[in-house]
Amino acid sequence: MSLLIKNGRVVTATEDFVGDVLCEGETITAVGQGLTAPDGAEVIDATGKFVFPGFIDPHVHIYLPFMGTYAKDTYDSASRAALVGGTTSLIEMVCPGRDEDPVEAYRFWKSKAEGLSACDFAFHMGVTRFDETTPAALKQIAEDGTASFKVFLAYKGALGVDDDELFQTLKLAKELGVIVTAHCENESLVAQLQAQFLAEGKTGPEWHEPSRPVQVETEGVRHLMTFAELTGAHVYCVHTSCKGAVHAATEARLRGVNVWVETVIPYLVLDDTAAQRSSENGWPDFEGAKYVMSPPIRAVRHQPFLWDALRSRTISTVATDHAPFDFVGQKEMGRGDFTKIPNGIPSVEHRIRLLYTHGVAAGRIDLNTFVDAASTQAAKLFGLYPRKGTIAPGADADLVIYDPAIKEALSVETHLMDTDYDGFEGWQVDGRCDLVTVRGAKMVEAGKFVGQLGHGKFLKRQPTHF
Amino acid sequence: MSLLIKNGRVVTATEDFVGDVLCEGETITAVGQGLTAPDGAEVIDATGKFVFPGFIDPHVHIYLPFMGTYAKDTYDSASRAALVGGTTSLIEMVCPGRDEDPVEAYRFWKSKAEGLSACDFAFHMGVTRFDETTPAALKQIAEDGTASFKVFLAYKGALGVDDDELFQTLKLAKELGVIVTAHCENESLVAQLQAQFLAEGKTGPEWHEPSRPVQVETEGVRHLMTFAELTGAHVYCVHTSCKGAVHAATEARLRGVNVWVETVIPYLVLDDTAAQRSSENGWPDFEGAKYVMSPPIRAVRHQPFLWDALRSRTISTVATDHAPFDFVGQKEMGRGDFTKIPNGIPSVEHRIRLLYTHGVAAGRIDLNTFVDAASTQAAKLFGLYPRKGTIAPGADADLVIYDPAIKEALSVETHLMDTDYDGFEGWQVDGRCDLVTVRGAKMVEAGKFVGQLGHGKFLKRQPTHF
Amino acid sequence: MSLLIKNGRVVTATEDFVGDVLCEGETITAVGQGLTAPDGAEVIDATGKFVFPGFIDPHVHIYLPFMGTYAKDTYDSASRAALVGGTTSLIEMVCPGRDEDPVEAYRFWKSKAEGLSACDFAFHMGVTRFDETTPAALKQIAEDGTASFKVFLAYKGALGVDDDELFQTLKLAKELGVIVTAHCENESLVAQLQAQFLAEGKTGPEWHEPSRPVQVETEGVRHLMTFAELTGAHVYCVHTSCKGAVHAATEARLRGVNVWVETVIPYLVLDDTAAQRSSENGWPDFEGAKYVMSPPIRAVRHQPFLWDALRSRTISTVATDHAPFDFVGQKEMGRGDFTKIPNGIPSVEHRIRLLYTHGVAAGRIDLNTFVDAASTQAAKLFGLYPRKGTIAPGADADLVIYDPAIKEALSVETHLMDTDYDGFEGWQVDGRCDLVTVRGAKMVEAGKFVGQLGHGKFLKRQPTHF
Amino acid sequence: MSLLIKNGRVVTATEDFVGDVLCEGETITAVGQGLTAPDGAEVIDATGKFVFPGFIDPHVHIYLPFMGTYAKDTYDSASRAALVGGTTSLIEMVCPGRDEDPVEAYRFWKSKAEGLSACDFAFHMGVTRFDETTPAALKQIAEDGTASFKVFLAYKGALGVDDDELFQTLKLAKELGVIVTAHCENESLVAQLQAQFLAEGKTGPEWHEPSRPVQVETEGVRHLMTFAELTGAHVYCVHTSCKGAVHAATEARLRGVNVWVETVIPYLVLDDTAAQRSSENGWPDFEGAKYVMSPPIRAVRHQPFLWDALRSRTISTVATDHAPFDFVGQKEMGRGDFTKIPNGIPSVEHRIRLLYTHGVAAGRIDLNTFVDAASTQAAKLFGLYPRKGTIAPGADADLVIYDPAIKEALSVETHLMDTDYDGFEGWQVDGRCDLVTVRGAKMVEAGKFVGQLGHGKFLKRQPTHF
Repeated sequence: MSLLIKNGRVVTATEDFVGDVLCEGETITAVGQGLTAPDGAEVIDATGKFVFPGFIDPHVHIYLPFMGTYAKDTYDSASRAALVGGTTSLIEMVCPGRDEDPVEAYRFWKSKAEGLSACDFAFHMGVTRFDETTPAALKQIAEDGTASFKVFLAYKGALGVDDDELFQTLKLAKELGVIVTAHCENESLVAQLQAQFLAEGKTGPEWHEPSRPVQVETEGVRHLMTFAELTGAHVYCVHTSCKGAVHAATEARLRGVNVWVETVIPYLVLDDTAAQRSSENGWPDFEGAKYVMSPPIRAVRHQPFLWDALRSRTISTVATDHAPFDFVGQKEMGRGDFTKIPNGIPSVEHRIRLLYTHGVAAGRIDLNTFVDAASTQAAKLFGLYPRKGTIAPGADADLVIYDPAIKEALSVETHLMDTDYDGFEGWQVDGRCDLVTVRGAKMVEAGKFVGQLGHGKFLKRQPTHF
Repeated sequence: MSLLIKNGRVVTATEDFVGDVLCEGETITAVGQGLTAPDGAEVIDATGKFVFPGFIDPHVHIYLPFMGTYAKDTYDSASRAALVGGTTSLIEMVCPGRDEDPVEAYRFWKSKAEGLSACDFAFHMGVTRFDETTPAALKQIAEDGTASFKVFLAYKGALGVDDDELFQTLKLAKELGVIVTAHCENESLVAQLQAQFLAEGKTGPEWHEPSRPVQVETEGVRHLMTFAELTGAHVYCVHTSCKGAVHAATEARLRGVNVWVETVIPYLVLDDTAAQRSSENGWPDFEGAKYVMSPPIRAVRHQPFLWDALRSRTISTVATDHAPFDFVGQKEMGRGDFTKIPNGIPSVEHRIRLLYTHGVAAGRIDLNTFVDAASTQAAKLFGLYPRKGTIAPGADADLVIYDPAIKEALSVETHLMDTDYDGFEGWQVDGRCDLVTVRGAKMVEAGKFVGQLGHGKFLKRQPTHF
Repeated sequence: MSLLIKNGRVVTATEDFVGDVLCEGETITAVGQGLTAPDGAEVIDATGKFVFPGFIDPHVHIYLPFMGTYAKDTYDSASRAALVGGTTSLIEMVCPGRDEDPVEAYRFWKSKAEGLSACDFAFHMGVTRFDETTPAALKQIAEDGTASFKVFLAYKGALGVDDDELFQTLKLAKELGVIVTAHCENESLVAQLQAQFLAEGKTGPEWHEPSRPVQVETEGVRHLMTFAELTGAHVYCVHTSCKGAVHAATEARLRGVNVWVETVIPYLVLDDTAAQRSSENGWPDFEGAKYVMSPPIRAVRHQPFLWDALRSRTISTVATDHAPFDFVGQKEMGRGDFTKIPNGIPSVEHRIRLLYTHGVAAGRIDLNTFVDAASTQAAKLFGLYPRKGTIAPGADADLVIYDPAIKEALSVETHLMDTDYDGFEGWQVDGRCDLVTVRGAKMVEAGKFVGQLGHGKFLKRQPTHF
Repeated sequence: MSLLIKNGRVVTATEDFVGDVLCEGETITAVGQGLTAPDGAEVIDATGKFVFPGFIDPHVHIYLPFMGTYAKDTYDSASRAALVGGTTSLIEMVCPGRDEDPVEAYRFWKSKAEGLSACDFAFHMGVTRFDETTPAALKQIAEDGTASFKVFLAYKGALGVDDDELFQTLKLAKELGVIVTAHCENESLVAQLQAQFLAEGKTGPEWHEPSRPVQVETEGVRHLMTFAELTGAHVYCVHTSCKGAVHAATEARLRGVNVWVETVIPYLVLDDTAAQRSSENGWPDFEGAKYVMSPPIRAVRHQPFLWDALRSRTISTVATDHAPFDFVGQKEMGRGDFTKIPNGIPSVEHRIRLLYTHGVAAGRIDLNTFVDAASTQAAKLFGLYPRKGTIAPGADADLVIYDPAIKEALSVETHLMDTDYDGFEGWQVDGRCDLVTVRGAKMVEAGKFVGQLGHGKFLKRQPTHF
């Protein structure tokens, strides 16, 4: 089956032209002006609309046992939500407990997606323990095509690694040519500050941010930088929220450290007052709990800094850290103890529209940066390129036709994510993903999911550096 | 006339695929796999070769009165040299004296290129004085399509501007949406150190670097950063040679300053021992004079730093600062007084091959970075994009078919630049620009210039920021 | 005549003990416990009070033609004001116009003090021009005992030096072993921003700070640091007001630059809202003009930073930049044009009591730091030590008995400075300088001036570094 | 008994005058010029010599089980060695194992000194574990007069604390007003690099430095800084060896962290080539082992940096980290495995003479800085002031008469330290401690120990901040 998209404004990380994109089977075969449709090709007119490469969310949680409960989404809900939001590939974090066998955990996580996901998917393999059996397991997993690791400097005792494990993971990753993504917060500081606040009766969600202040995150990034410098590993700081952390990574980059920085959409559009919402300031009781994630959403002065850093490409990617928990029954577990609020702000469905609205339409970033940060860089860093992340001959026909003229409001009433609230309830966004294809198949039309569950494929990835 | 380049490895700043590029008339109309040649099209097989977008050298001097003499090249020699070296567009610096009328100077400079250049060309308008007549003149020049300025913090009294002029130039540039390129060295420090060295009998070319030490350049960049921060202007530091300067720009970028950084090919492959060559250490007498440029070539420890900064995209572009002077009769003017050595290391012809050899082939940067730094970024920053800087439908058919398998030695015997020496004499390079087109016309075949002088066009550019 | 001060709490930059100080003639001859009074000695009981070394104000203007008018004080008023405030020696800035002969100017300035001043005095020689006659003049002045220079990076065309002059001044200072004090603001930025604000109708005193933002001062300090690094000169940044400036000096110190940092009392206790006072916010019309000085008083967040930097001894000294102008007839010159407001906040009389109250009594600094910053460091840096700045055998008997129990309010009604307003009107301070001696002579008793005008001597100083 | 020292050049951290010092009993009672000797006083002429306050070594190991052996000195040898070297008070580290009871360990360590030491002594209490019993134990120890703690970020599992323990120690210290001294190296990095080198057959002492590179120490300091910032504790970085570590502390100081920096004499006068000495480069076999300490002695470029930082008072103190092991039988334990070389370079006897020679006599620091760094700062930081650290009425009569005219060579043949080698064998020093008193008693005369063992007292200290 062939598809010819005509007269769209085709935008990639580098290009921006009005023209046509031809897809044959699962693949883009030509881009040009005045391309002729092959026999039997479906021709779609994209006049006045953008044609973007399918977006990639490199930091998603779907199956997630966390704080005694489970994240709400499955690949059924999450992959449909991703697709209507323009995300055609996602990378999920495999987060085994320290006592789980990594290969089994990996297979288990993978089994949750295979045959069910509507979008393509890949994994970062969480390394939550490192002993003498670990290298063989990780090699096996990398050879299966999961060529990136994830470590937590936070969540010690649960998911976190200690410094010896961190060093060994990075050293192995360097040998394998595998990039290591890292959650950078010093866990002891968090634990101690949490204990201190709880002891002082500071139990509401507004204390979540002060219990993980910017120093905790900056310390985490600096720590990782030292380890990366001494091992030579390629590293990627996930969900970077503040000035200090970005400064630490940038300083390391100037010392030759191979580091890339991710931020996530909530940090770009929300600030710490969200987690302070309560019945005392005109919001529903415990409303702030909806906005608890880690690192926390910061004081508003960090927002323009992050946009600037994104614009200057100091920050490489914008992901979500999608981790969906209901307010009722889940977020509520943390009433009276903010440390028990499951972390996460569901956003896999909204990332692209929020980034377009508050980034491109607001004049903070240009279109190429938008595509680069939301698609291309993730593809390149994580070995999905050249299949994914761009519109070029030979690439998978993952395309998003985006109509910027449509204005809609986000809402729990309409979203496909399986949570009982929407952190962006009522927010107006500019644009809609009119048509979304995954390897040539139409998954979304007129903004509605029209695809098949199970269409999504596991993406085997190669190491990206040697 | 149509041209179909088949089966090359097409590399842009983002893409890397094996496929075809179709050019019709002066324009690229399609890229794809298995493209069909239109009737009458010439088909070129690029199997095993790279197809790059035409390279852009954003920092070139051709007509250049300097230190009492004139640079040797004309557009005849320089544009041919550029083309065989893969550079299809260059941006020349217009450097009027402080007492010259800017519009007249601009026209004069332009007249040297029009009708003669074989490659396309544009200008950065040197602002070497700012008085009440200047805004109107600069607006006129910008409206003529020369939408970028150049200021010198060095060469005070000759080309340099004072701080009031710098502020006003940046403020006007901000209003016009025009980027300002800047030579960042504190001239007083240079003049004082020069006088001091000469008074101490330190007169040889080896004293050129110590007379403009890294502190002088770092000071210059910091100075520009403050002015850019307070005016909001977009700025571009030309020929950045050292750690301190890059650090200064990076720190400013984190404060939100709109700054980009250029380095030039000599800094990446030469070190300060070049200017120290003399009959005392086994070289011909006064050999070091061939390697005098400003800022000077630095101690070797800056080289890996610059490559790292290029790789991490902290440095945006690699230009040449091509400024061609003969050794005999010109460089020799500085015998007994290094301050009288005309500055420059001719390299417009060699930039691409040196960067490929020491960058890509040596494993320091990847192919996309190579293209980005040597073509795409210059196009984007200076308003040449989307005509130039990439291979995409609608872009000018400026293409370079590069055969990496061919090894050649650089030499004054074979180079087209009009100088009596080659700073890279005998250096082996990997690859040759087999075929080079400018707007569809073949200018180079089998590495030889085959084009027409006068084919080159003046490139009208629009402001790039608002 | 001998004086034995008994049982005071003797505090120097290092010491803190309860004991006695014996002065014979003009000199301290012993400190101890249970000292015996020589025959005829006057014995003073200092039980419950502090005995401090006489304080030194290293940055004072008395004779000052500025902005078309003259500062109000003479040595009559200023030296009496200094003494009741505990300052026994002051260093005045000699500020010749660019066209004045430096030696004549120096003599003229000196003549204003000799025979009139009640306290001891010295000068920083302002270098406001540097030509071929300058070295001989400055040597002559240094040999006369004025072994420190002052340069202005601000006030270009009036008092300011250009970069060549700055370099030569520092180089000469290095040769002579003379420290150079510097006013660090980039004047062009100030002039341009002033012009811009006035053009926009922003004419009130509240625009003074924005016209000289922190970037302007930081730039000035960085600039001086580069020049000091390349000349090896010892430098001293006067009236440092903000984080960026202190950071710049600290970074340079880590590179080996010989730099010391002064702040002044207004920056420690006032913030930028002072200059914003007007009839629109409940103050008298144009009240803000009383608080116009340069660099300007900053946003309140700089205050705790400056106190911290003082406590950690990153900032060496606390001076005043005393520059006294009346509100009526002088400050008022700037109505409708803030750039015409004479700069200065009179404080030579209040420095010690404000610093004690807001520093020591408020727990921000300890007593040794108080003495070090307000006396000892100035003595050491400027060649007054060991005569001045401490309580030790052989030192001049300049002593302050300070009674911390007395609380008073500052006021124009009671102050001795010759201005028609007091910038600290009504402020409560802890403590009073009960007894003040200059070389053994009692100048202040019970807080009142009881000395002789003309008692003060010119302090000949030697170079402090070689 | 009284002692009157006449006509010496009395130098303290602040003062420098020729005069007399009168001691009565254990105490200094007066300083002055022309003091009269009380009846029965011994009068000593110090003409042409310095009179310094007794020096304090704030970082000494005497009883030290380490790496399976014990440090060689006892208080017999160590206190005599200290005294002939001018050190009248030392602070020893109590280093209990993790499973030892802290109070018992403290008593045990104390018992080794009491009744035996010839010089005065105090302790830093090592906190090598923190559990629920720890606060009470540490309070008891602090109340006993040991008001400073020591933590190791290195030596994990042995002496090191983990991050939770570090936080709790600092928090408790903040409550108690007790300063925390810290050994800042990330132990995991060390352990991993050690394992890597050993696996690669890199087993000689020259691999000690590369196994603990500057990044490891810088990381340690940064880590401590974050914890100090979040707890508000006062901290003191022991044995700082490199630029990165000093930079990290200085940056924190500018953020308001209460941090002080110690270096030790070996870093100021030795470089990493010492540990590289072997039979392969003309030294005895395994000679490098004599120079193994942690952090390691660094590349020579760090030396001038450390001197500069000392001069600018960025570094507060110069200690020794005296840890004496024989070459034969002890250092030799590490043949074939550098990780088994007991760490330490014995220097308690030589610190003052090396610092005077390479600091004062070489023109790198002045006399006041010398006294401040080697005596006064330690007294002030650790609660020994005003008893110790200065020459002032009421202070203990701990004095050193130093004759700078005497030149001697250091040697194992003559030193009193109980080790079989001297790391400074044959080094010439300027000056000798002619007379040394401890609380009025003569312990050294003509450079020879003449005192009584057991004269030394335990110094009870109070918390220094609140």
